Amino acid sequence: MTVSRLSQLSPWIDMLVGVLDRQSMTLPARIYRRAEAALILIGLLAMIAFTTQSLTPGEHLLASAVLIAVMVLFLIDALVRVALSRPITLRQKHRAAEAGDTPWAGTAWGALDVLTVLPMALVAPFSWTQTGAPLLASLWLLRFARYSGGGRMLATVILREREPILGVLLLFGIVLTGGAVLGFLAERHAQPEVFTSVGAALWWAITTLTTTGYGDMVPVTLFGRMIGGAVMIGGLGTISLLAGILATGFSAELKRTEFLRSWDMISKVSFFENAGAATIADVAALLRPRDFPARSVVTRRGQPGDCMYFIVDGEVEILIEPKSVRLGSGAFFGEIAILTGAPRNATIVTTKATQLLTLDIADFRALAASRPELTDLIRREAELRLGKGPQ
Amino acid sequence: MTVSRLSQLSPWIDMLVGVLDRQSMTLPARIYRRAEAALILIGLLAMIAFTTQSLTPGEHLLASAVLIAVMVLFLIDALVRVALSRPITLRQKHRAAEAGDTPWAGTAWGALDVLTVLPMALVAPFSWTQTGAPLLASLWLLRFARYSGGGRMLATVILREREPILGVLLLFGIVLTGGAVLGFLAERHAQPEVFTSVGAALWWAITTLTTTGYGDMVPVTLFGRMIGGAVMIGGLGTISLLAGILATGFSAELKRTEFLRSWDMISKVSFFENAGAATIADVAALLRPRDFPARSVVTRRGQPGDCMYFIVDGEVEILIEPKSVRLGSGAFFGEIAILTGAPRNATIVTTKATQLLTLDIADFRALAASRPELTDLIRREAELRLGKGPQ
Amino acid sequence: MTVSRLSQLSPWIDMLVGVLDRQSMTLPARIYRRAEAALILIGLLAMIAFTTQSLTPGEHLLASAVLIAVMVLFLIDALVRVALSRPITLRQKHRAAEAGDTPWAGTAWGALDVLTVLPMALVAPFSWTQTGAPLLASLWLLRFARYSGGGRMLATVILREREPILGVLLLFGIVLTGGAVLGFLAERHAQPEVFTSVGAALWWAITTLTTTGYGDMVPVTLFGRMIGGAVMIGGLGTISLLAGILATGFSAELKRTEFLRSWDMISKVSFFENAGAATIADVAALLRPRDFPARSVVTRRGQPGDCMYFIVDGEVEILIEPKSVRLGSGAFFGEIAILTGAPRNATIVTTKATQLLTLDIADFRALAASRPELTDLIRREAELRLGKGPQ
Amino acid sequence: MTVSRLSQLSPWIDMLVGVLDRQSMTLPARIYRRAEAALILIGLLAMIAFTTQSLTPGEHLLASAVLIAVMVLFLIDALVRVALSRPITLRQKHRAAEAGDTPWAGTAWGALDVLTVLPMALVAPFSWTQTGAPLLASLWLLRFARYSGGGRMLATVILREREPILGVLLLFGIVLTGGAVLGFLAERHAQPEVFTSVGAALWWAITTLTTTGYGDMVPVTLFGRMIGGAVMIGGLGTISLLAGILATGFSAELKRTEFLRSWDMISKVSFFENAGAATIADVAALLRPRDFPARSVVTRRGQPGDCMYFIVDGEVEILIEPKSVRLGSGAFFGEIAILTGAPRNATIVTTKATQLLTLDIADFRALAASRPELTDLIRREAELRLGKGPQ
Repeated sequence: MTVSRLSQLSPWIDMLVGVLDRQSMTLPARIYRRAEAALILIGLLAMIAFTTQSLTPGEHLLASAVLIAVMVLFLIDALVRVALSRPITLRQKHRAAEAGDTPWAGTAWGALDVLTVLPMALVAPFSWTQTGAPLLASLWLLRFARYSGGGRMLATVILREREPILGVLLLFGIVLTGGAVLGFLAERHAQPEVFTSVGAALWWAITTLTTTGYGDMVPVTLFGRMIGGAVMIGGLGTISLLAGILATGFSAELKRTEFLRSWDMISKVSFFENAGAATIADVAALLRPRDFPARSVVTRRGQPGDCMYFIVDGEVEILIEPKSVRLGSGAFFGEIAILTGAPRNATIVTTKATQLLTLDIADFRALAASRPELTDLIRREAELRLGKGPQ
Repeated sequence: MTVSRLSQLSPWIDMLVGVLDRQSMTLPARIYRRAEAALILIGLLAMIAFTTQSLTPGEHLLASAVLIAVMVLFLIDALVRVALSRPITLRQKHRAAEAGDTPWAGTAWGALDVLTVLPMALVAPFSWTQTGAPLLASLWLLRFARYSGGGRMLATVILREREPILGVLLLFGIVLTGGAVLGFLAERHAQPEVFTSVGAALWWAITTLTTTGYGDMVPVTLFGRMIGGAVMIGGLGTISLLAGILATGFSAELKRTEFLRSWDMISKVSFFENAGAATIADVAALLRPRDFPARSVVTRRGQPGDCMYFIVDGEVEILIEPKSVRLGSGAFFGEIAILTGAPRNATIVTTKATQLLTLDIADFRALAASRPELTDLIRREAELRLGKGPQ
Repeated sequence: MTVSRLSQLSPWIDMLVGVLDRQSMTLPARIYRRAEAALILIGLLAMIAFTTQSLTPGEHLLASAVLIAVMVLFLIDALVRVALSRPITLRQKHRAAEAGDTPWAGTAWGALDVLTVLPMALVAPFSWTQTGAPLLASLWLLRFARYSGGGRMLATVILREREPILGVLLLFGIVLTGGAVLGFLAERHAQPEVFTSVGAALWWAITTLTTTGYGDMVPVTLFGRMIGGAVMIGGLGTISLLAGILATGFSAELKRTEFLRSWDMISKVSFFENAGAATIADVAALLRPRDFPARSVVTRRGQPGDCMYFIVDGEVEILIEPKSVRLGSGAFFGEIAILTGAPRNATIVTTKATQLLTLDIADFRALAASRPELTDLIRREAELRLGKGPQ
Repeated sequence: MTVSRLSQLSPWIDMLVGVLDRQSMTLPARIYRRAEAALILIGLLAMIAFTTQSLTPGEHLLASAVLIAVMVLFLIDALVRVALSRPITLRQKHRAAEAGDTPWAGTAWGALDVLTVLPMALVAPFSWTQTGAPLLASLWLLRFARYSGGGRMLATVILREREPILGVLLLFGIVLTGGAVLGFLAERHAQPEVFTSVGAALWWAITTLTTTGYGDMVPVTLFGRMIGGAVMIGGLGTISLLAGILATGFSAELKRTEFLRSWDMISKVSFFENAGAATIADVAALLRPRDFPARSVVTRRGQPGDCMYFIVDGEVEILIEPKSVRLGSGAFFGEIAILTGAPRNATIVTTKATQLLTLDIADFRALAASRPELTDLIRREAELRLGKGPQ
């Protein structure tokens, strides 16, 4: 928000803001993100190479150079981002809050940007090899976190299923401690140099409970092996429970997120504007949002038609002869193939970054059963289009 | 129950009972529980340290002192709990049972308290190091069990899915025994000093079936390796099946528990008092109970609004100018943000320990489709409030 | 069926048939089954002991004696079962088939009985130790198979999800073979004595893919370790997929089996006799069948009431003063606790082996919403009973 | 399509096309596919044998001969397939595309056929042992891919759940890199010859994260073991999440695929031709398609009846006396057993390759509740048939 206000100052800043905007689908912004991803991977490889002892001094130097170069680039990126967001005074911030704005949205991500590069930048000047500065490159991987809705969803699921997850962890702790103490009692006389203490036995118990089984500590007595077998089976049960809880929570959260995203997008599609709340709730559960960059192919002539599309925002071009047709926000297409079962009769490409909602053929049929009035509308439009020419 | 009768005797006992009550949300009770948790963890660490051989005699003594101190504190706690529940004579117990009361509810937990500390207290006076008394500190971990609904839920699921779980365990047993006998036959001539008996082969089979794979016993013959591969794949199948059964059961039990808890709480919310059974059944499946301690923030001004709240018990304060508003049991709030899509227009805090039911925005919309009369009521109230000022 | 005809010949045979009937819930039959289970476990322990090299000759002899004794008992059991089913001539069998009967039902289990004991009986006379006869005791574990519906259900799920399971196994095979060949190529020069052939590499690949990881074969080259990492992650994916397929299939099969069992039982409950197909389908999805042996406690006075019961077959006694009440097939009980929320007001025991259908409190409330006429009937009966005295 | 045009040229080509058609259910085509599968497995075994060092020169030669023979057969197969599809000129292709045809359908599979055999054929002439040509036989396993819908379904699920899967992989990457760097820091002084570099620590981290645990690198310091334990638990969480995502996606995709397949088949069954869209959508969710080759037994007299059948395409023969009855496409059978609960009263076999839709008894009853008009039709037909004689 503040960034967009700033952007009125100069077209250069305008462009910079556009490039740095991580939600933007424009070409420069996407290239910038790709470049950042490449830099992260290159930096990680250089870090791994740096610690390899078989490197020649020259290769060692090269790895250091790469690391420092990437660090400097990330520092510049962080400085520019901070600079672009600096002009917000406390007073502005207050006013924005009054207006219901969330001016510091993205600050968490901004802090992440700074945090991933600052430690290395602070430590590097003192000593490059003694301080282990190159290893701090591993922090850069966290920069990917922002591109993934998965991480946020994971956090939500863990928060929501907090109680059963804590229950499983408690169970885990009880089996772990109990197994370690019993294993220690069973093995301390047979292998006093291996099962030296409860602490050592805890290490054995955790490698056993997670079924990792390094083999550095292995029970040899009958009682120790029975404890070991019980801990293994307890491990399987715990993994199973955890998988069950996370799977259940994840599935529900996935459905919920898609429902909300679809609901918001449906309100922008003119086709649904007269539909009641009940209809929209039904439809929102079926539609799946998809983003297409500009000039990308949505459907290809001759392919089987397994879904139809509603345009939320953007524009598509239907490549038919003699003259291509363009459809804008609110329109739908691709319905002919799912009504007739024939393959796509035209290739369709986006002319700019476009948000679509897709309705799967299976869901279309289920919808035809429960909301015939909606699919009848689509059917009538399809008949009109077929009368006019291929869609 | 009996505890509450006793509590009329004296304000001191009153306070003690309140502090020791494990369902209580008052500050002293919560501090007491936190302190107990800290003691358990300190005790466990002292136990682990005690067995470490590299300790100096001084450190050894310190670990012992910590263990004994924690033990004494838990003993006192157990004695106080027993003392507070002692006045129930058999006759009182009988009368309580007649009245439909369950006076000994919590006795199972009380017994657990005693059981976790008694063995060590009994053994310690005789010999501290010879009897392994310090290792009994591992029992203290069981004291956490009471705080977790997860354990109880786990027991319910295992009980309910008893039959398929037994089926999987039988399968497990058949693969285990079969694998051990075949592995013994395959390897006894090639490695007579490793695969010495069917018992030893059973240990190999269980480390293989659970995919732990210590590597202390590894087949070397072609036939032995084929058996090993089959046992591993059998292990994956068994884990998968177990995960499937537990996940299915857990998911159903979770839904059932929340439904019952919501149902009980809905009956206390005045908003739903005229709703029929069908409506309540629908709503109970959607609402999620949440507990807030006193003076905690429920929503913060400017945050996105993703759910609305019904107050079951307690009170919240809406921090708006010029004058804050308080809402008590039965009221609802937070509906404006989900109706308008705007961020929260006020920070809301609890004034005392408060039980809320939350209705997610996705579920609100689904409810609007199936029970429009309910959401219309909420909408009308929101309009009233918006007319009066920010909520 | 034929067995029941035979049983008219003599009361002795009658009793034997009753004892041997594996579906029977009578006391002698249950004791016989318990004894058989104990014999299987004793036999397995004797088998494991037999191969242990540290045994004294006396212990060795004891283990042999136990094995032979159990074998003889199982042989007698098999002979009696065969004898009891012998009189069916081919003609009788044909006639039974015409009548829609399935006279050889149970023959598969009968064959299993014979197969688990015959090999040892045939081999033992020639040589006890040379032929490995004692190891054949591991077959006895298969005798448990009949008591578990889990195994049958597993078979159904595997059959039904045949195609996706084959797909996963194919994927497994491709990753396995590809991993083995690439691992062989990567490691054959670095560790020629370990990765000797593709066959050896296959053993490495399967221990890696199943994440068993014995550690007897470990890649040391960079390329070998990258292959290893890829195979491990492929293994996790494969396990996840398999778990997903089995979990989905198992959950569906579990629901289907319970639905059918409930449906069959509902038809015997008089309360539902006037209900239409739609109602029965609804109810059958909610009820869960449970078997109680004679003189077992169904509910205990003072316990919380979380479900109500319908009697399919058998009889229960409600222990109230002054005089206990008995309810027979078709009646229901336990509805008062779920209607009022109070704890059980009476202890209820079975007087003979009894089949009940339980309706969970959560499902009762959901049913009250969708089928109020049913729950109203239950409510009215409860009011009658409360008028008459505690239930 | 083009293949079918070609087939007018000559009956020989006709036959060849039929045999090579991988969707065909005729006997020669099925024998050809079985033979191909056998050849793949024989080839793989020969490849594994070839690299075994303990082979005699003669056995070595035999393995080579088998490999070359299978390679030549697959080459011929590929050439014939290419030859049969050659006559399509570019112009024909263009015209077919205009007509909405997909003439190159199957080309992807065709390319696969060529790709699995071409590399070996190209490399083998130069040097058989030096180039590792025999190892290329592992590519043949990919030929199975086409028979499995599982692979395609897997691809769909991975594509659809792309975002959460990427989120999990990112999490995986973060735990892996972080674990490796911390593990390296913890262990490099204690075991400098084992934890030599971050690269080596990465190998340790991946064997730990996937719970493989070879044991070639094991932390020995307290801090290293704490890192190890955290990585293991992180591994369990990651596996659980992945399992949850894949299970959810797979279950939805499985349902969707079956729904679409049933929908297409229902339209060919005359019984449903007057049913509305809502009914068909309901029924399609319940029916399961099954393919039977010619002369296979569908139901056997005396077996319990757990489903009924609709004939989509093909013919079945009901073996009753005095005269068998034949039913063709559009008919249904097996309804008597599920209506009466009696076992099947006749054995039913297919006379040619037949596609059936099965309706499970549980689903039939649920359908009876929601669509009584459909099941009434079936009931009436059953009464007619029972009047005429056994079905």
